[in-house]
Amino acid sequence: MAKENQFVSQIADIEKDFPQWYTDVVLKTKLVDYGPVKGTMVIRPYGYAIWENIQRELDKRFKETGHENAYFPLLIPMSYFTKEAEHVEGFAPEVAVVTHAGGEELAEPLAIRPTSETIIGTMYSKWIQSYRDLPVMMNQWANVMRWEKTTRPFLRTSEFLWQEGHTVHATEEEAREETMKMLGVYKEFAENCLAIPVICGQKTEKEKFAGAVATYGMEAMMLDGKSLQAGTSHYLGQNFAKAFNIQFLDKDNTLKTAYTTSWGVSTRLIGALIMAHGDNRGLILPPVVAPIQAVIIPIAAKKPGVLEAVDEMYDRLKKAGVRVLADKSEQSPGWKFNEYEMKGVPLRIEIGPRDLAEGKMTVVRRDTSEKAAAEIATAETTVLDLLATVQKDMLEASRKRRDSRIVYAQNLDELLAGVEGGNFVKAGWCGCRACEDRVKEFAQATARVYAEGETAEKCVVCGEKAEHVVIFARAY
Amino acid sequence: MAKENQFVSQIADIEKDFPQWYTDVVLKTKLVDYGPVKGTMVIRPYGYAIWENIQRELDKRFKETGHENAYFPLLIPMSYFTKEAEHVEGFAPEVAVVTHAGGEELAEPLAIRPTSETIIGTMYSKWIQSYRDLPVMMNQWANVMRWEKTTRPFLRTSEFLWQEGHTVHATEEEAREETMKMLGVYKEFAENCLAIPVICGQKTEKEKFAGAVATYGMEAMMLDGKSLQAGTSHYLGQNFAKAFNIQFLDKDNTLKTAYTTSWGVSTRLIGALIMAHGDNRGLILPPVVAPIQAVIIPIAAKKPGVLEAVDEMYDRLKKAGVRVLADKSEQSPGWKFNEYEMKGVPLRIEIGPRDLAEGKMTVVRRDTSEKAAAEIATAETTVLDLLATVQKDMLEASRKRRDSRIVYAQNLDELLAGVEGGNFVKAGWCGCRACEDRVKEFAQATARVYAEGETAEKCVVCGEKAEHVVIFARAY
Repeated sequence: MAKENQFVSQIADIEKDFPQWYTDVVLKTKLVDYGPVKGTMVIRPYGYAIWENIQRELDKRFKETGHENAYFPLLIPMSYFTKEAEHVEGFAPEVAVVTHAGGEELAEPLAIRPTSETIIGTMYSKWIQSYRDLPVMMNQWANVMRWEKTTRPFLRTSEFLWQEGHTVHATEEEAREETMKMLGVYKEFAENCLAIPVICGQKTEKEKFAGAVATYGMEAMMLDGKSLQAGTSHYLGQNFAKAFNIQFLDKDNTLKTAYTTSWGVSTRLIGALIMAHGDNRGLILPPVVAPIQAVIIPIAAKKPGVLEAVDEMYDRLKKAGVRVLADKSEQSPGWKFNEYEMKGVPLRIEIGPRDLAEGKMTVVRRDTSEKAAAEIATAETTVLDLLATVQKDMLEASRKRRDSRIVYAQNLDELLAGVEGGNFVKAGWCGCRACEDRVKEFAQATARVYAEGETAEKCVVCGEKAEHVVIFARAY
Repeated sequence: MAKENQFVSQIADIEKDFPQWYTDVVLKTKLVDYGPVKGTMVIRPYGYAIWENIQRELDKRFKETGHENAYFPLLIPMSYFTKEAEHVEGFAPEVAVVTHAGGEELAEPLAIRPTSETIIGTMYSKWIQSYRDLPVMMNQWANVMRWEKTTRPFLRTSEFLWQEGHTVHATEEEAREETMKMLGVYKEFAENCLAIPVICGQKTEKEKFAGAVATYGMEAMMLDGKSLQAGTSHYLGQNFAKAFNIQFLDKDNTLKTAYTTSWGVSTRLIGALIMAHGDNRGLILPPVVAPIQAVIIPIAAKKPGVLEAVDEMYDRLKKAGVRVLADKSEQSPGWKFNEYEMKGVPLRIEIGPRDLAEGKMTVVRRDTSEKAAAEIATAETTVLDLLATVQKDMLEASRKRRDSRIVYAQNLDELLAGVEGGNFVKAGWCGCRACEDRVKEFAQATARVYAEGETAEKCVVCGEKAEHVVIFARAY
């Protein structure tokens, strides 16, 4: 026990200092490290394996919904940004600029993409001629760069990895449908793969993507009650199509301007995963994206038959499609228990001489700490079923926690009390920027999304007629 | 026939103008387009799908040989490059430099990675303490930037996609073994997935990677007899370990400097694929990496039962794991034949009323133009077997062609005649730089790799004692 305590004490207390807990956990589980350039991160193998699982799940969904992957250049001529007025205003301050290359100063400075609407729009304009070329539905997996003042691994870094979908449609209706469809894909993915319940809805003018007509976001509640924007889907209307001249000859033989969308999620999702689950022992990873789904630990490894049984179980589970690890190293079982709990491995399988004698093994769930004996003979079924159960239970537990933390406010004091208590606060809003700014100033909370389908009488700030019910929260 | 001829005439004649044929084919099949910044390319969905297939096959092999993926930052402080003298000399002239970010001038200019030995070395130095931490075997899939004067899509572009493996070992022996192992992985992949036979061997000092002790390359012969360096594996000795202080406490309790390797292949492989196969009708893609392995084309589509049979075949082949497309568009069968031949689809399946009546379909191979009737009842087996046959035959045909074009030279005139005839030329070499430069000047050919295990009496240039047999060729 002494050893366990010593070990656990390396991580800050999750209740007392959540930010430090986060930093401790991401560094100690070797998910990530700081890069040498300010604000950059190195995604280490354990973290990158989560990203690969996220990519696999999302990529499958993108392809099933008719999208193709492509790759557009990293460097964008600075002049492209100025073609869409809101866009340049939003992104110019964060851009990293290449001024020299090949030993010479460049004639025009080049931006490292902070997002690719401008360069993709330029290519689309060249490729699209006729209604027969539509819709165009592409996605790219890429690195992007936004020079941020305050950075934290995964949550906000100068460079991050993401996917950005960019589609072109003949009509507003189709483009709006695509925007909502991809938001739905994100929601289903967040809930079923990351076990994170999300609230989807439209963003206010202030919070929308620079250049969009409408931005829809999905907001996830972290363990401290703060919100994290986990993904966005933008209806861009004709803003970029006009700026980049994306036109097509329609069936009626007239030249029309197209409608576009874009949508993205990033390595930020790994931050969401960490802060939506987890406890004082470290990470708790949902099986669908966990790099290791089950770890097998020998007990009294030197006793005859134990290591052989471990090897056999490893082979069987691997063959059954489980991402399994057998730790036969010389560390003590206690050390290993802590290590893999910290790493958030969903299931621990203990195999020791006593269990073996009865044809059994012990299976321990990371999410609930439940411990049970299981028949070795039917291990595959037991493990696969348990993984599915853990996945489902983690989502339900998160949903219950989140739902218990949504409150309503009639005035600013209630709103402040709500967010200070770690809640999402629903409140009426008149729709004016001054009131939105006042909430930020008074409660350090921002409008996350509109609560779709809900109505309120009065604005929580000015008391005038409410246009929307807004979910306010403090946010990452 | 008129239509077919018209169509084919869009591509330059492969015998008369191979470079133009290449450009025509990559643009017309929509593999790639030029980006707005000089020397950059846009990889379009059909080209990117090839890259995804390459990635899937290679990534599997990297993981099977014990490597893990990670991601290191794009931006590298300029000062890092100067730590390894040869390395900075080799790469500094090609680097793109970020001088401004977030609206301010940076204190230190940052390079966009041309390769990542320096930044990865920096992190390894931090992570590695003891012999227990070794070996470290990581790979990253990333974009890199090298500002080149002359560029061509896939073959040489300012930005390209690649993978770079970086490993650290306790001993020279282990590091050398890793270097050769990964070269072997590349060779097996090139031959079995790309159907390109390659010659592997060590590079001369002049041609080696800047900072390596020894570079091993794999050289592929293109249809015009020129060589393309398709991948490299570097034994870096202690050069980078010393420059970046990668040390470990060994079992004997003394501090030792580690040994490192790096190895990479890039989107250049797509260029290799195009130029190693192909004919006057366009691309010929090997099934393992072809985005579409079989295309089904209805004949007399309006006749009863034809489109239903096409749909059914599509479902059956898809279920059998074939990457299949059914083109039911209103274009004529002739137009479709040309289109998918140009795109290099390995198999074409024609389904029409006459065949159907006999329970048959027609299958046409892209590589040999062989046409045969096949039973619809056993379509899955037929198609899967044929795909395997095409894959094997394409490698054998390439190997035969390549082997028939390797000649020996005793003097510079023979060497010149050899490379002008579109051959790889084996010749003795004394080992001195002056003679290597003379070959380049006289025959516009470079030393590709040493012909392992072969010996020669005299240097092809100076007539002095030969140290190596070198494969000389003109190269991309």
